[in-house]
Amino acid sequence: MAGKAGSGTAAMRVAVVGAGVSGLTALKCCLAEGLAPTCFEQSRDVGGLWRYTEHIEDGRPSLYTSVVSNTSKEMSAFSDFPFPEDFPVFLPHARLLEYLQRYAERFALRQHIHFGTTVVSVRKRPDFAATGQWDVVTEADGTRESHVFDAVMVCSGNFSDPSLPLHCFPGIERFQGQYFHSRQYKHPDVFQGKRVLVVGMGNSGVDIAVEASRVAAKVTVCTGRGAWVFSRVFDHGYPWDMVFNTRFMNLIRNSLPGALTRGLISYRVNQWFNHENYGLQPEKSCLVREPVLNDDLPSYIITGKITIKPGVKEFKENSAIFYNCPEEEPIDIVVFCTGYNISFPFLEEADVKVENNHASLYKYVFPAHLQRPTLAVLGLIKPLGAIMPVTEMQARWVTRVFKGLCQLPPRSAMENEVMEKKKNKVQWFGLSFDEVLKIDCLVYSDEIASFIGVKPNVLALLFRDPKLALSVFFGPCTPYQFRLQGPGCWDGARQAILTQWDRTLKPTRTRVTSSSSGIWPSFLTLFGFLLLMAAVFFGFQ
Amino acid sequence: MAGKAGSGTAAMRVAVVGAGVSGLTALKCCLAEGLAPTCFEQSRDVGGLWRYTEHIEDGRPSLYTSVVSNTSKEMSAFSDFPFPEDFPVFLPHARLLEYLQRYAERFALRQHIHFGTTVVSVRKRPDFAATGQWDVVTEADGTRESHVFDAVMVCSGNFSDPSLPLHCFPGIERFQGQYFHSRQYKHPDVFQGKRVLVVGMGNSGVDIAVEASRVAAKVTVCTGRGAWVFSRVFDHGYPWDMVFNTRFMNLIRNSLPGALTRGLISYRVNQWFNHENYGLQPEKSCLVREPVLNDDLPSYIITGKITIKPGVKEFKENSAIFYNCPEEEPIDIVVFCTGYNISFPFLEEADVKVENNHASLYKYVFPAHLQRPTLAVLGLIKPLGAIMPVTEMQARWVTRVFKGLCQLPPRSAMENEVMEKKKNKVQWFGLSFDEVLKIDCLVYSDEIASFIGVKPNVLALLFRDPKLALSVFFGPCTPYQFRLQGPGCWDGARQAILTQWDRTLKPTRTRVTSSSSGIWPSFLTLFGFLLLMAAVFFGFQ
Repeated sequence: MAGKAGSGTAAMRVAVVGAGVSGLTALKCCLAEGLAPTCFEQSRDVGGLWRYTEHIEDGRPSLYTSVVSNTSKEMSAFSDFPFPEDFPVFLPHARLLEYLQRYAERFALRQHIHFGTTVVSVRKRPDFAATGQWDVVTEADGTRESHVFDAVMVCSGNFSDPSLPLHCFPGIERFQGQYFHSRQYKHPDVFQGKRVLVVGMGNSGVDIAVEASRVAAKVTVCTGRGAWVFSRVFDHGYPWDMVFNTRFMNLIRNSLPGALTRGLISYRVNQWFNHENYGLQPEKSCLVREPVLNDDLPSYIITGKITIKPGVKEFKENSAIFYNCPEEEPIDIVVFCTGYNISFPFLEEADVKVENNHASLYKYVFPAHLQRPTLAVLGLIKPLGAIMPVTEMQARWVTRVFKGLCQLPPRSAMENEVMEKKKNKVQWFGLSFDEVLKIDCLVYSDEIASFIGVKPNVLALLFRDPKLALSVFFGPCTPYQFRLQGPGCWDGARQAILTQWDRTLKPTRTRVTSSSSGIWPSFLTLFGFLLLMAAVFFGFQ
Repeated sequence: MAGKAGSGTAAMRVAVVGAGVSGLTALKCCLAEGLAPTCFEQSRDVGGLWRYTEHIEDGRPSLYTSVVSNTSKEMSAFSDFPFPEDFPVFLPHARLLEYLQRYAERFALRQHIHFGTTVVSVRKRPDFAATGQWDVVTEADGTRESHVFDAVMVCSGNFSDPSLPLHCFPGIERFQGQYFHSRQYKHPDVFQGKRVLVVGMGNSGVDIAVEASRVAAKVTVCTGRGAWVFSRVFDHGYPWDMVFNTRFMNLIRNSLPGALTRGLISYRVNQWFNHENYGLQPEKSCLVREPVLNDDLPSYIITGKITIKPGVKEFKENSAIFYNCPEEEPIDIVVFCTGYNISFPFLEEADVKVENNHASLYKYVFPAHLQRPTLAVLGLIKPLGAIMPVTEMQARWVTRVFKGLCQLPPRSAMENEVMEKKKNKVQWFGLSFDEVLKIDCLVYSDEIASFIGVKPNVLALLFRDPKLALSVFFGPCTPYQFRLQGPGCWDGARQAILTQWDRTLKPTRTRVTSSSSGIWPSFLTLFGFLLLMAAVFFGFQ
């Protein structure tokens, strides 16, 4: 069997664990590179996290009904498969699942997926050093089966294993109300008339607090660290990520000295609302977590529906006490929005080490210490931006590494880089495992893209196709940019870039007055303004 | 009986119709001026519009459960009775009612109110020209009673008589779904799983659409005219009215040429989100209605929960057709948010003429053509700002006119001014009956204040008390400013002004980090920025 990369013999057999966002794109990239993928999905359909079920299934992610994507459809698309123009700009879970299903149809992925099949273990074969092969044991309907694969792509996600560190909450054992992890949350009905405490200020914490406050007697959100809150509806109503994630802005962000940048970002972030006045100010504003995406929170605070408090010091029978607050807060229900653990129950710890919820992976993908690069972890990132195209970029890279068309650096170089990353763990917005890492979404995508030769060359483009080049540089960095050249280049990419604003505006411009101008002139004017304002007020790092 | 104003004999007897916002402050002002008021309230308690009931009562206003005040507590207060500091900045109806009840206690108003008593008719007495007296017939528990009053204050509000112009909607008679006026709306449950059409884009229309969209299958809002949408959470998170309604901003707004102003306001209004891209662009942007106050709408549009459409052209059995839209929209429920009629069923048409929902009143208060100024209508305004302090100002003026301490101009002058107003009816934001009138909230308050000698003299103040003067000129124009001097001057006014931001920030600064600065330094810095930005981007008229 051809363990050898790039050999002309039978296609490499690749196991893909999971058929969610990462698994689907991994499958698609394997097929594009002529590999022979087999995907194992424990549930009965594709979609992973985005396949909403009323019933909470063990070991599977679980969404609440009202969840909406944090990133816009143009920024979230796979790079050769734009969202339909009539889809809303930010996507309720059902529409996102629909998109994933269409992707699976379009690239004929289903025939490679074994549904109802759980991966039990993935172990290096005895001759791993020579072949790079893996023994993969799966279980379906109570029957175990053993397979040999040339490579494995781990696409099992990191929203299945809830983190509920009760030992951090003294007195929780005597608390007589109800408490549960956010993963258990589906509908706000449970909060009817209750006094609710939400612990933690991530995206789900805030979403749940907002929903609860419509029916609850009182909602308190407690947070030790605080958070910056961003709105999906950004400057002039354009989606936040289409304004924030442009090559132009990124250049500015990465060119200025750190202190200046932090000051300007802090000013910009507080322009919507002063976080200090709303009790949300991060504890140390220079060491900030990734921002929370929520359009509702400030108006819910200012109308008294949600109250922000510091971290919980102690629980009592029917109340909570917060740091620096003398009075007890009576509580009926506590929702712990304390996130998830990263875990790979089917892997050996020696293969992928997880410490402090941080997996030691080269570029967040490859275990640095393996003798052969035939194991890759996908989607283990929290970029300040859409996760789908970043995962896809990882899959494109990984499949080319498997095939031997891309080389990884020597093991020692990879290990050193991973060590460096760990040291810089907490920094400004960017990629993270659970804390925030330094690199930002666009820088990371560009880096991986350059490994496989698909990073757009803006300067060259400026001479060949200036209209496109301007759009690539000043416009939102949509994923289609990584299909303009190199391997996997897509004919439709140019057109997809030039029409990205049409698809963005189409679903909301549903009433056009006689005095309305066309999309383009108004957009161009605003875009000019936007750039100017952005340049001055914001975009520095 | 002393019909003569200002005579030293028995106090003037004043009938106050209604014990809502206007009625309560009318009562209080009568007592302050030593008049003898009697208030008739048809329901069983004070609060008027703000007294929420689950059951819809005929001839009474009706709120939906989720309603929140459009103006902040500091700007909405009566001028000598600030809201408690722990009340939220924007007030759910229950808190507003609580405030009104406290006001009634504080000034011992209840003993002057006859509850359960409806005013059936108010007619000029035969000797009206000499005495200015009125025959007032009331009904309580089926028994009619007749009274003679020296003057009448009409405080019956204008949210009791719903306007449902079905003739404007061809085909509505064959529509087989359910339809009702927004007045009937209480809870979103009725929309569960339905396709909902909301007709009209006023404040209730948008509130109802947002609530419906959380449970409905689909929500469409149709509007012929469009609207500007403002957020309560304004620049840097400060309440919109505390930023917008300052003497400084007003000066700028009123000093620039109209076209420039409109351009700048239009730019500023679109800074939150481009109204054209969201289908909300007003039909004629220079002739705009008062803005809609809603923080949620744009994010509900961009996530596809609410779709905006042009006006309804026609209803069919199970659908609606909109202007300029070829396809039919399937509809199960229609909510007509078409506003209210102004009506005074107890008055003679000759006394207060209502044409096109516009009552001919001098300064929106006094019928211009009566021989004696002993009838006044309160609260018949829709200022771009809080209605409560404006109504109070009217009451202070009216009671002093009744007493003869203020004189009205000759009848012809008043009639001319009313005619002029009618011509200029539709203009930029400001006071309105149902369309928008030219004068804005602050200009109007100042004008009435100058009639009674309580308009603050900023220049004089600058020498006597510079700190206060700066706050009065650059800070939000809170109602306490009209208690600094002249009749009804209040000892606490200065302190109330200097602590207005403390009371605003207190309910939301519920988590203070160790690195937080005090309120003042951060506020001052931001205030400086705010002013600068406001001056440049916004504040022109």
